[in-house]
Amino acid sequence: MAIITLTTDFGLKDHFVGVLKGSIYTELPEATIVDISHGISPFNIQECAYILQNSYHNFPKGSIHIVGVDSEATPENKHIAVLVDGHYFVSANTGVIGLITSEMKPEKVVELNLPERIQGSFPVMSVFIRVACHIARGGTLEVVGKSFTDLKTLREFSPRMAEDGTKITGSVIYIDNYGNVVTNIRKSFFDSYGKDREFELHARSKKIKKIHSSYSGIVDFNGAADKQKNDGDLLALFNSSGYLELAIYRSNLDTVGGASTLLGLEYRDTIIIDFFN
Amino acid sequence: MAIITLTTDFGLKDHFVGVLKGSIYTELPEATIVDISHGISPFNIQECAYILQNSYHNFPKGSIHIVGVDSEATPENKHIAVLVDGHYFVSANTGVIGLITSEMKPEKVVELNLPERIQGSFPVMSVFIRVACHIARGGTLEVVGKSFTDLKTLREFSPRMAEDGTKITGSVIYIDNYGNVVTNIRKSFFDSYGKDREFELHARSKKIKKIHSSYSGIVDFNGAADKQKNDGDLLALFNSSGYLELAIYRSNLDTVGGASTLLGLEYRDTIIIDFFN
Amino acid sequence: MAIITLTTDFGLKDHFVGVLKGSIYTELPEATIVDISHGISPFNIQECAYILQNSYHNFPKGSIHIVGVDSEATPENKHIAVLVDGHYFVSANTGVIGLITSEMKPEKVVELNLPERIQGSFPVMSVFIRVACHIARGGTLEVVGKSFTDLKTLREFSPRMAEDGTKITGSVIYIDNYGNVVTNIRKSFFDSYGKDREFELHARSKKIKKIHSSYSGIVDFNGAADKQKNDGDLLALFNSSGYLELAIYRSNLDTVGGASTLLGLEYRDTIIIDFFN
Repeated sequence: MAIITLTTDFGLKDHFVGVLKGSIYTELPEATIVDISHGISPFNIQECAYILQNSYHNFPKGSIHIVGVDSEATPENKHIAVLVDGHYFVSANTGVIGLITSEMKPEKVVELNLPERIQGSFPVMSVFIRVACHIARGGTLEVVGKSFTDLKTLREFSPRMAEDGTKITGSVIYIDNYGNVVTNIRKSFFDSYGKDREFELHARSKKIKKIHSSYSGIVDFNGAADKQKNDGDLLALFNSSGYLELAIYRSNLDTVGGASTLLGLEYRDTIIIDFFN
Repeated sequence: MAIITLTTDFGLKDHFVGVLKGSIYTELPEATIVDISHGISPFNIQECAYILQNSYHNFPKGSIHIVGVDSEATPENKHIAVLVDGHYFVSANTGVIGLITSEMKPEKVVELNLPERIQGSFPVMSVFIRVACHIARGGTLEVVGKSFTDLKTLREFSPRMAEDGTKITGSVIYIDNYGNVVTNIRKSFFDSYGKDREFELHARSKKIKKIHSSYSGIVDFNGAADKQKNDGDLLALFNSSGYLELAIYRSNLDTVGGASTLLGLEYRDTIIIDFFN
Repeated sequence: MAIITLTTDFGLKDHFVGVLKGSIYTELPEATIVDISHGISPFNIQECAYILQNSYHNFPKGSIHIVGVDSEATPENKHIAVLVDGHYFVSANTGVIGLITSEMKPEKVVELNLPERIQGSFPVMSVFIRVACHIARGGTLEVVGKSFTDLKTLREFSPRMAEDGTKITGSVIYIDNYGNVVTNIRKSFFDSYGKDREFELHARSKKIKKIHSSYSGIVDFNGAADKQKNDGDLLALFNSSGYLELAIYRSNLDTVGGASTLLGLEYRDTIIIDFFN
């Protein structure tokens, strides 16, 4: 049976997540439910998209992803279900689906049309769970919705290229659990624009001239008697999601601090890469 | 097989929750375990009751709910198992069961009588898990306990009505993940007392004259060109659990702030509703 | 099928945990996955070891424990899989395995030798998950690694005994969710050294002369009309993991405070026990 994943801004203290799981198991005793995150900042669509974009494709095709962020239906944010890249998403039409799957063309989009009376102030439970269970049981989108073509799009993730080929202007899209700073500059974008030229990355007052492929890339294991000397050093790398990330080697938020604090970089701040030649 | 749920004040960092799950799976490899919450404030029975009251009934009948808050057995707080509303609860006799199931009459209550030697400083593992697994395997309460009639009752959740019919005095029972303020005034109570009269709700210096049925109830989607203007507005609604709640529309604790902060309302603070003739 | 447990410093907000679970379910749709903790302080091997040491043995023999703390392979910290005490651990060779299983002799240790290309900046996903699934399917360690004898050992957990038999010098190894202070002094160690002598435990300016076996051990249920008077009192006990712990009876971090705050004791601070003849 298809996996149902949950990504919400509900937090883990309240009863909301328990309610969702109880409701799913009541309908589908054999369900497999996976929490992707319940720690999304309230109503933060971009953050939600970053988390889902980097995780949904690790699940089997046919998985059903419930997006419980800003989920109340309004005339502008209708409830929808989308099949894209072989995965189902159940969400409000906030633009989050486009951010998650970027250029991919959805195979199917429907506006959910469950009876009005089952809405209320907790639609993730009353609507999304019901639709997810329907899909998990092998039901089609056509049964729970009608064709919909007005999928909202938001564009926030794209870095800008200078027309003269000298500069990329990116921005911070996420600060992770280690305080590492994730930018919107993907490796594929960097490579195709940079064409192996030398460069200088500017993050506030810091300059970086090399991008590694792993966190320990900064360490000279042959030369260094004491590798600990690298703890707390700043490095840039393309992370496991393919994004340019600024990290502190073995960052410890309690002692050496994370890259975010050390560089003074926050969500939406700017990163510049200058290319030479 | 019956679902076993966990509601504790153990937090998610320590090994305690892992220990519980390992112990359950060792006894019952096919168990379905659901975390309702491990974020209850230490020893806070009221908070625990609020969380369970709003979630247990979403699970299938026959589910077994382990209550791991203030769980050490004492002469005053004996270990008990209760069957009520078709659900099993395993707990210390702290009064939490009465708060969860309010006026419902338990079908069965037993005082657990497992051998003394298996107690110790972690009874949720050594006692509750064992009892829960026994029930999940289809065992009866009679085997693990003896009949018990001294179920402790606490009464904290009830609002007061003025005898002249002009006023409800309620109080704050929970602050949720969004900073929303949940009061002990239920919709059924409000309706039967208020009888459709006009009213004014007083929360500190704020006055509210309307109670909505959803968070976006405050938004005039027909009139407003820009619905964003409502972000940060205060509203009252009956939440998905049926309680009167004060919320900030699209509250963001980092920017507009939550209702709790904005109103200066904390756990146990007073809310007054004045009715007009 | 064997249980796979996860212990990491990934936190619960980021996508990392979801990625791991999606990857496991893709390989093993019938997997049972248990989160032990994702709240380990970044790169804190000692903390990780304390959590796992106190929980792994509650899982069935044959369980597979993924250790996602400081997991990047380096020439000094190779990726390994270990069979010890009937449990499998997949980890980097950071010394954590020795701390978890202390004096136990591993039955088997291999250095993982998966193809270089699958490494990258997220080896818990690209390497550990793959190895764990291989073991869960019944595969042998020999297929994924080669024999390895250089298991790193760290020794941080042992208290010191004075040669004249008068004193134990221990230290704080963990502060738990209640603010309770866990020391590295085990009951077995205390008993064999103390031999029932009277003693005085010194924790900063506080002195304690009795060690209880449960949190409520401090309460005189026969004498006290009001047991609440013990709330907030300091007590020492051997906790459910067998370690000497300093606790506040019914500690509430918001009101009475935890033992850590009240005593001014932090991770690595010293505790002294003086014995009398």
